[in-house]
Amino acid sequence: MVELQYRSRTVSPSERFTMKKTLLPLSRVYRLLEPGPVVLLTSARGPMTNVMAMSWHMMVDFEPPTVACVISDRNYTFELVKKTKECVINIPTVELIKKVVGCGNVSGRRVDKFKKFRLTPTPATCVAVPLISECSANLECKVIDASMAHKYNILILSVVKAWVDRERKDPRTIHHCGRGVFMVAGRTVKLPSKKK
Amino acid sequence: MVELQYRSRTVSPSERFTMKKTLLPLSRVYRLLEPGPVVLLTSARGPMTNVMAMSWHMMVDFEPPTVACVISDRNYTFELVKKTKECVINIPTVELIKKVVGCGNVSGRRVDKFKKFRLTPTPATCVAVPLISECSANLECKVIDASMAHKYNILILSVVKAWVDRERKDPRTIHHCGRGVFMVAGRTVKLPSKKK
Repeated sequence: MVELQYRSRTVSPSERFTMKKTLLPLSRVYRLLEPGPVVLLTSARGPMTNVMAMSWHMMVDFEPPTVACVISDRNYTFELVKKTKECVINIPTVELIKKVVGCGNVSGRRVDKFKKFRLTPTPATCVAVPLISECSANLECKVIDASMAHKYNILILSVVKAWVDRERKDPRTIHHCGRGVFMVAGRTVKLPSKKK
Repeated sequence: MVELQYRSRTVSPSERFTMKKTLLPLSRVYRLLEPGPVVLLTSARGPMTNVMAMSWHMMVDFEPPTVACVISDRNYTFELVKKTKECVINIPTVELIKKVVGCGNVSGRRVDKFKKFRLTPTPATCVAVPLISECSANLECKVIDASMAHKYNILILSVVKAWVDRERKDPRTIHHCGRGVFMVAGRTVKLPSKKK
């Protein structure tokens, strides 16, 4: 594993052990994104990093897990991801809601958002982009198709590694309803279904 | 308004008045889809209709509201939408959860899902596809780009008309977590935000 140094303090591999994140089989990644949570997209180029709040994403295929997302070409994240072809989708829960809104309100061109919002960067294993330690799940992604970026700002990502905190039962994801209003994940219901 | 006859009984324009749906400004459509609810996609070709449960969708632009969605080419819906270039995104709430799962478990090639699941078709105004009366919102859509259908089953839709039931305060949307497990929309939280 390459030890990367970002602008903020980086968690070492031994410290990461205390994060209690374990690998999630790639076949289960869709279960995290299909409900439509707000995610924090991290990107990096050398020591420069960024964190972007993102709601415009969808699953495109189950396995390998393929995700489409919209990143405006006015965003610093677009610049970084376009160059490196790598990013991490981090899934925050309601405890992080103020940091999520904060990340959405400033540009990473001017501030180190990891530092400003006290988010802990942890090295990924397959991409040179930090995971956000505080999030309940982290999906390491490679950009596999940018042909729709010009017309729609759509990037197609392949999730190559997935981490999840199994000790956090029933994580309360947040879902953006516009203008700073968020719906917090409520109760779950299970019905017999033939579908994935 | 064209009065359309579908396989199931169709609600007349006068009956529709009792549905209490009113027009939603197109600039607000993203607020319905951004939280990531399961939707029921309706399609039609002549008297043939279909209803498909769909979670793989995302906003692509605010205005005109543009939506990307994934429809497998194995689905009857794909056949209908590809030919007519029209569909309706209907947003169900938790009261309809059994019908939503039911729609996902059978093919519209064999059964009239409006009839089987007692859903009431109502004529749209801009497309020849029925709205589902029982849903809390209905978005009439035209396919504007099918160039990604071959590679990713992605269609780009433009929402041309939006209806919402304003009497239903705080509608409890459902969000699919895989294998028939659904998260039901919980409480809402508002934070100061500069973002749309």
